[in-house]
Amino acid sequence: MASALSSLETPCFVVDLKKVVENASRMRETCKSLNLQLRPHTKTHKTLEVAEIQTNGSKRCIAVSTLAEAEYFADNGFDDILLAYPITENKIKRCLALMEKLQLFHVMVSNNAGLDTLEKEVMRLPSGKKWSIMLEIDAGYGRTGFNWDSKEIEDAAVRIKKSEKMHLESLYIHCGNSYSIFNNSEKHAAQKDVISRSRSAQSRLKALNIECQVGTGSTPTCSLPLAENAFFAEFHPGNYIFYDYEQYLLGSCKQSSIACRVMTRVIDHKPDLNMILVDCGFTALSHDGMRQRPEDFCLIEGDSNLRLVGMSQEIGKIAAKEGELDCRNYPIGTILFIIPFHGCATAALHPTFYVHSGTEVQTTWTPVKGW
Amino acid sequence: MASALSSLETPCFVVDLKKVVENASRMRETCKSLNLQLRPHTKTHKTLEVAEIQTNGSKRCIAVSTLAEAEYFADNGFDDILLAYPITENKIKRCLALMEKLQLFHVMVSNNAGLDTLEKEVMRLPSGKKWSIMLEIDAGYGRTGFNWDSKEIEDAAVRIKKSEKMHLESLYIHCGNSYSIFNNSEKHAAQKDVISRSRSAQSRLKALNIECQVGTGSTPTCSLPLAENAFFAEFHPGNYIFYDYEQYLLGSCKQSSIACRVMTRVIDHKPDLNMILVDCGFTALSHDGMRQRPEDFCLIEGDSNLRLVGMSQEIGKIAAKEGELDCRNYPIGTILFIIPFHGCATAALHPTFYVHSGTEVQTTWTPVKGW
Repeated sequence: MASALSSLETPCFVVDLKKVVENASRMRETCKSLNLQLRPHTKTHKTLEVAEIQTNGSKRCIAVSTLAEAEYFADNGFDDILLAYPITENKIKRCLALMEKLQLFHVMVSNNAGLDTLEKEVMRLPSGKKWSIMLEIDAGYGRTGFNWDSKEIEDAAVRIKKSEKMHLESLYIHCGNSYSIFNNSEKHAAQKDVISRSRSAQSRLKALNIECQVGTGSTPTCSLPLAENAFFAEFHPGNYIFYDYEQYLLGSCKQSSIACRVMTRVIDHKPDLNMILVDCGFTALSHDGMRQRPEDFCLIEGDSNLRLVGMSQEIGKIAAKEGELDCRNYPIGTILFIIPFHGCATAALHPTFYVHSGTEVQTTWTPVKGW
Repeated sequence: MASALSSLETPCFVVDLKKVVENASRMRETCKSLNLQLRPHTKTHKTLEVAEIQTNGSKRCIAVSTLAEAEYFADNGFDDILLAYPITENKIKRCLALMEKLQLFHVMVSNNAGLDTLEKEVMRLPSGKKWSIMLEIDAGYGRTGFNWDSKEIEDAAVRIKKSEKMHLESLYIHCGNSYSIFNNSEKHAAQKDVISRSRSAQSRLKALNIECQVGTGSTPTCSLPLAENAFFAEFHPGNYIFYDYEQYLLGSCKQSSIACRVMTRVIDHKPDLNMILVDCGFTALSHDGMRQRPEDFCLIEGDSNLRLVGMSQEIGKIAAKEGELDCRNYPIGTILFIIPFHGCATAALHPTFYVHSGTEVQTTWTPVKGW
């Protein structure tokens, strides 16, 4: 039976189901209109329920950030899973077990050491299987991956093609700077740059008789209304399913599309300090964003004159941006909702997500933890 | 059977058992020499095993930061538990259940609203029980609690004394600024200030015929070699059991006493950027400290020329402080240990602690999560 949001113990992470469904549907439509495959990333939520919504019930074609996620989804009927993380030797054993279980499991190779490791382990592959590889390119922004303009990427592709036990699934490029450009025309220009560099790498491989498509990730770039994005074969966004204050600032979403918040209660008044205290400390809200925006790193919903100015383990300090804060307007016990700067970082702090429709709690979701 | 630390999947939170035992023993000795009661705080670790070490096997007399902790310890044979958090109405029901179960359960009252709530609920108390109250004083640093020099604290104490269903266990004071003073003589002076303010509140209550002792918390002040600390009746430190880089900077411990680290592996090289990448992102290491010390917010153990300059969800960027970083010195797969700025914040990110003696993993501990 549904209960009221206000009956929940605070702090807690609350997720608006309707907005999640809308965000999932909008990204699916974007992909459809660009004629590309959506491979949603599960790193933001790490729950079966959201992955089912993201895949529109198919449970096929997802990207994960940890082996713990890959195993959790594989154990629960998901398939066609990409471990979207540089492959290293310590991960091989569990990858092989995943290949036994799944029809399709892909790994990401970001450097020659990764390729060496896979090659060394071909004897242990399940019978009839090959390593399915996404080769990661760094478009010039210093993320993981082969430099887009290096000869290394061509050598790696040739090496994969020559091996009977490796398959080049695609190239993969992450627009690493998409989180630092707040101006729309600059963002479009940067993404066009990424596309032209990807196209260059793709052409150089084609000249070697290696045909391959290119996938990309990141919510800001996948949210761009850019016809040129049709160049890509796959989108791997993750954060879009919840969004957050940062994505709103980046122009990826409207504020009304943000599906996740931290619910907190006022626990004390400090009129001398012009502050109220709430039960939201750094175990409930990530410090993410505090370095970039110390005065404005999250939003107190519906009260634009309030700001969170500090947190200890279980206590948050809220002050007024302008003028005095009249504590009488916030009696002890008052519920406030905080929109996090980074939804992924804040979700990662919570063992349970409280899923609501309007002010009613419908259910809870339990994310998988660890690595 | 014990396994090698190096066989663990990374990132992971590793705890040095010997150091934990030493840190526990040292704080017990300090309390013994000052003739005061140790009520260790469990917020840092949230595990049965560490609480057992902290209480020297007695499982009696602990402080907790959340109801989830209180219930977990109560369900596992611990007793005499203080919920060291401002009591609010939404917590009452679970507190009453804890009182049913425990011989001794104490709540912390930090304002009049807390006292109103307890008074309103006296009819629901288990038969023969009273609310056992620690009255929190704010020594002037803007933490939760009644201002030490206010008449309110006297009124609250009188109100408790008059009630048949409330018992004033003690006053409680937290030296809120102990985390911002890095100079020893200033720290001593600040603590003497806290003591004189506590003594003033205590004397004013005595004048009203209310005798009560004073407890205090915080690892920096409990670690001070200050004879005046004998004024207190109880110490409630928490962080001391693991310590961290911040406590080392504050002078609370030697670097060799820090018992917790994050183990990580090198996953990629970025020679153009003078960087190596490791599998330690913000899901494994808290951003805590990055605002205060952007260039030096954690330590890469044993390699003083390295520093962590940024993190995404699952990746950390490590650069050289001076000169070029020769990636060949850090082959992919190399294990590094990171000493966190704030051990409590980093521990809170991990579902499992890997407990080691030297380089051997002895066991795992599972902290309780949530609120």
